[in-house]
Amino acid sequence: MAKTKKKQKLKARLPRGFVDRSSDDIRATDKMIAAISEVYEKYGFDPVETPMFEYTDCLGKFLPDSDRPNEGVFSLQDDDEQWMSLRYDLTAPLARHVAENFNVIQMPYRTYRSGWVFRNEKPGPGRFRQFMQMDADSVGAPGVQADAEMCMMMADTMEALGIERGDYVVRVNNRKVLDGVMEVIGLGGDDNADKRLGVMRSLDKLDKFEWDEVAKLLGKGRKDESGDFTEGVGLSREQISRLYWFIRLRHRPYDQNPQPYVLNPTFGYVSEDVSAASEPIMKDMLTAMAESEDYNKSSIYMEGVSEFHMIEALFTAAGYDDGRIIIDPSVVRGLDYYTSTVYECELTFPVTNEKGDPVVFGSVGGGGRYDGLVKRFTGQPVPATGFSIGVSRLMTALKNLGKLDVSGNLAPVLVTVMDGSEMGRYQKMVQDLREANIRAEMYQGNWKKFGNQLKYADKRGCPLAIIQGEDERGVGEVQIKDLIEGKRLSEEIEDNVTWRESRPAQISVKEGDLVEAVRKLLAEQKDDREKDRTKQAGG
Amino acid sequence: MAKTKKKQKLKARLPRGFVDRSSDDIRATDKMIAAISEVYEKYGFDPVETPMFEYTDCLGKFLPDSDRPNEGVFSLQDDDEQWMSLRYDLTAPLARHVAENFNVIQMPYRTYRSGWVFRNEKPGPGRFRQFMQMDADSVGAPGVQADAEMCMMMADTMEALGIERGDYVVRVNNRKVLDGVMEVIGLGGDDNADKRLGVMRSLDKLDKFEWDEVAKLLGKGRKDESGDFTEGVGLSREQISRLYWFIRLRHRPYDQNPQPYVLNPTFGYVSEDVSAASEPIMKDMLTAMAESEDYNKSSIYMEGVSEFHMIEALFTAAGYDDGRIIIDPSVVRGLDYYTSTVYECELTFPVTNEKGDPVVFGSVGGGGRYDGLVKRFTGQPVPATGFSIGVSRLMTALKNLGKLDVSGNLAPVLVTVMDGSEMGRYQKMVQDLREANIRAEMYQGNWKKFGNQLKYADKRGCPLAIIQGEDERGVGEVQIKDLIEGKRLSEEIEDNVTWRESRPAQISVKEGDLVEAVRKLLAEQKDDREKDRTKQAGG
Repeated sequence: MAKTKKKQKLKARLPRGFVDRSSDDIRATDKMIAAISEVYEKYGFDPVETPMFEYTDCLGKFLPDSDRPNEGVFSLQDDDEQWMSLRYDLTAPLARHVAENFNVIQMPYRTYRSGWVFRNEKPGPGRFRQFMQMDADSVGAPGVQADAEMCMMMADTMEALGIERGDYVVRVNNRKVLDGVMEVIGLGGDDNADKRLGVMRSLDKLDKFEWDEVAKLLGKGRKDESGDFTEGVGLSREQISRLYWFIRLRHRPYDQNPQPYVLNPTFGYVSEDVSAASEPIMKDMLTAMAESEDYNKSSIYMEGVSEFHMIEALFTAAGYDDGRIIIDPSVVRGLDYYTSTVYECELTFPVTNEKGDPVVFGSVGGGGRYDGLVKRFTGQPVPATGFSIGVSRLMTALKNLGKLDVSGNLAPVLVTVMDGSEMGRYQKMVQDLREANIRAEMYQGNWKKFGNQLKYADKRGCPLAIIQGEDERGVGEVQIKDLIEGKRLSEEIEDNVTWRESRPAQISVKEGDLVEAVRKLLAEQKDDREKDRTKQAGG
Repeated sequence: MAKTKKKQKLKARLPRGFVDRSSDDIRATDKMIAAISEVYEKYGFDPVETPMFEYTDCLGKFLPDSDRPNEGVFSLQDDDEQWMSLRYDLTAPLARHVAENFNVIQMPYRTYRSGWVFRNEKPGPGRFRQFMQMDADSVGAPGVQADAEMCMMMADTMEALGIERGDYVVRVNNRKVLDGVMEVIGLGGDDNADKRLGVMRSLDKLDKFEWDEVAKLLGKGRKDESGDFTEGVGLSREQISRLYWFIRLRHRPYDQNPQPYVLNPTFGYVSEDVSAASEPIMKDMLTAMAESEDYNKSSIYMEGVSEFHMIEALFTAAGYDDGRIIIDPSVVRGLDYYTSTVYECELTFPVTNEKGDPVVFGSVGGGGRYDGLVKRFTGQPVPATGFSIGVSRLMTALKNLGKLDVSGNLAPVLVTVMDGSEMGRYQKMVQDLREANIRAEMYQGNWKKFGNQLKYADKRGCPLAIIQGEDERGVGEVQIKDLIEGKRLSEEIEDNVTWRESRPAQISVKEGDLVEAVRKLLAEQKDDREKDRTKQAGG
């Protein structure tokens, strides 16, 4: 049998959950990171970074994805058989960094970093396996005041990015309070550790599911739309309803927002007793909490409530109690390593979800206190607090708000090629322009089709094209084609509208005057753009 | 037998070949990348990036590390059994990106990117398994003029970073010329593909080894200092000496450099015939090459020489033939995918190597034409050229030259904590300072030991410390301690030298005047710094 050897072409594709980044995305991200860094620097934080890989045991297992391969982490074995993993966040590596350099680091250690993290998740629409986080952390900072500072910094960050007050809220909770509630309802002790974890992970789904669905997760289990069944935590009706008492204490000043949105809609119609409370809500809620006869038997609960009081006083002193920061017992955070205060920044303006329903945009970052992470290495407690911003998610939010600046440099001036044997001459022109700090390029495709060169200039948005054929060369001249003016003229001829005197769309200058002429034309185009803006703003 | 259960502490450590980055490193890298981006933008390139992972087959096998696990790449299997790898450079992923978006990309496609790449190499001193590259590429650019542009852009980049003309050189070779030489000495044809690869990889070691050692690699093999034997390519004496003829055509204007250095010292005492040639060397060498009776029978050789002539004309027209760019047949480049022009940027100033010998700093980046990479996916030829800068290595070079700017923001003003029950008041002060755009922080460690707070301020380099105890609070005042002035005063008292009138090291102001007073003191400190600089410059 004759075998036909057909050379298979390789298919260009990316693994699922990974994407390329466009110029616009990169420019927008860079600007965002610069703006965020400026806030962090102002708060006295300095940059420090760790590499992508860590030993798997150093990272620890804190992700909620216990059902995924390697528990949601990308791992591989090194030459020496040790397992290494790609970092799944920037906090666990920071703990390793602090422990490794414990003797040289000056505490409190205030640092920030941005970088890629990796989750071996089931990829889906909008769910990426590589995404960017930006973190700030205070290590060696034991007091609630360090948590308060983080919350204020998150709020300031939102405003530095142009998100207006009222369009975001920083929600604060304390795991000690939740731990106390769990203790009182019979979930205390080492034996119930798994159940407590289950409760936290179920409650963490409140931003995705309605209460009824979360209640199923807390109880016998939940079947999703595809028919997949998730085993429940196995709590009784009584236990579930007591957890419900706790989380519905939530203070939601943005309920007064007249715009329709859907978020945990259950709250809307059952929690009149709580949502009816008016300003100053934070204090009232805290008093209610502390006076609860049942829960205040738990010392851990009371410790949490006392921390709430302290943090609330700090927000009030600095003026952040105006709705920028609220206490909200429904905030849980998915990661395992938090020990007391947790906080989350939520964008409250409405967007439309996949089903076409209006929803609030939701969380763009959060964090909390992780007093045990460094201790894993050092054996001694090293209190720490910090948060992470989901850079890509925040970028989507800014796009929605029209606050995203993706403007790059103006497209380059194109020096066209009319004669391959004169390449050196064209190259010289382009170098002269660059030396005068003018963005410029020589056409690098197949020059023989001149039409392609102008098509390229058009698609690229080049402001000017430089042309020198044999005739122009003979008399030491170059043609400069004003592509912006040319476009405008042809559009105006179509529209039969003229609002200002036009410039000629093509001029001829002496070769030695090229740089000056280009500079002048670019300045005129800039003037036109500004006039256009003024005109549009005016009418 | 009683078992003692001892809880083992986890050791904080990083996998070999990975490192953390300090504030200084991050700031220096960010500034370098900004300066390089500015050059690339001026040349008309726009940013585009790809993710860290690619399917292993898309990356291809082009690394020289064939003896390492997975041929030098970090790979793992996805859920669906497909192999994914961390990118080992930024070129192979770009080829995938272009192929995947072939129908929407406007050619020539001029892009740049910086990012981490990963090599599963044997880690050693100064050899990292994660490092940063910064690349620029023109895809869909068939002519030698696109290669010439890349070389000029590399030269401009060095100068934008403050490396002076004469301290760097861009060396250009053409693989077609080497291919022609290999053809003539009997290494043509498919059967000799492995040998040709062996020759290239041996020649690529010329920046590390002397000729004699490279000759062993080309011949029977080489035993290194540790006794490890590397199998040779198996060429005859005659073949080796003919390769030697070719590579010693190298033009080295920096031989006139009076500073001693060691680089391929063999050349120094055997190539009088070549190194004696004076300006204009490039043209002479090219003429000599073209007239070589033996090699010019090879059409591929002659094609390469003709490309040399074209590229040389372009360098000359743009004025880069002043030693910034030279033709150098000893440049090979380690990667497999280059098809004709290759280029490398070398820093020529001397540094001291591990053995204490003076050597030139060497290569900081390079690239070449890779006309076949996109074709692997599309089936049709897509000519492309580009280069990569080794960001970390270049940073080391800039450190050596004293050209590295690591200056960050001034350390923050420290608001100390004297009374835990007044935390809100201190927090308000720090927020007021930040609102006035003054970098500030409240002490976040254990406030009870006041001495630790001032020690922290000192180690951190804080310019001012704000202090408010019960007495000051009673009269509505705060103390501002000028830590810089305090230090200067104590040093001057020790030195018994005073060159200007001193300010008081501590002042008391009304609480409401805090921000203004801090602003004034910081301005005075800034003045002092400038006076210090002037004074130091003056004498």
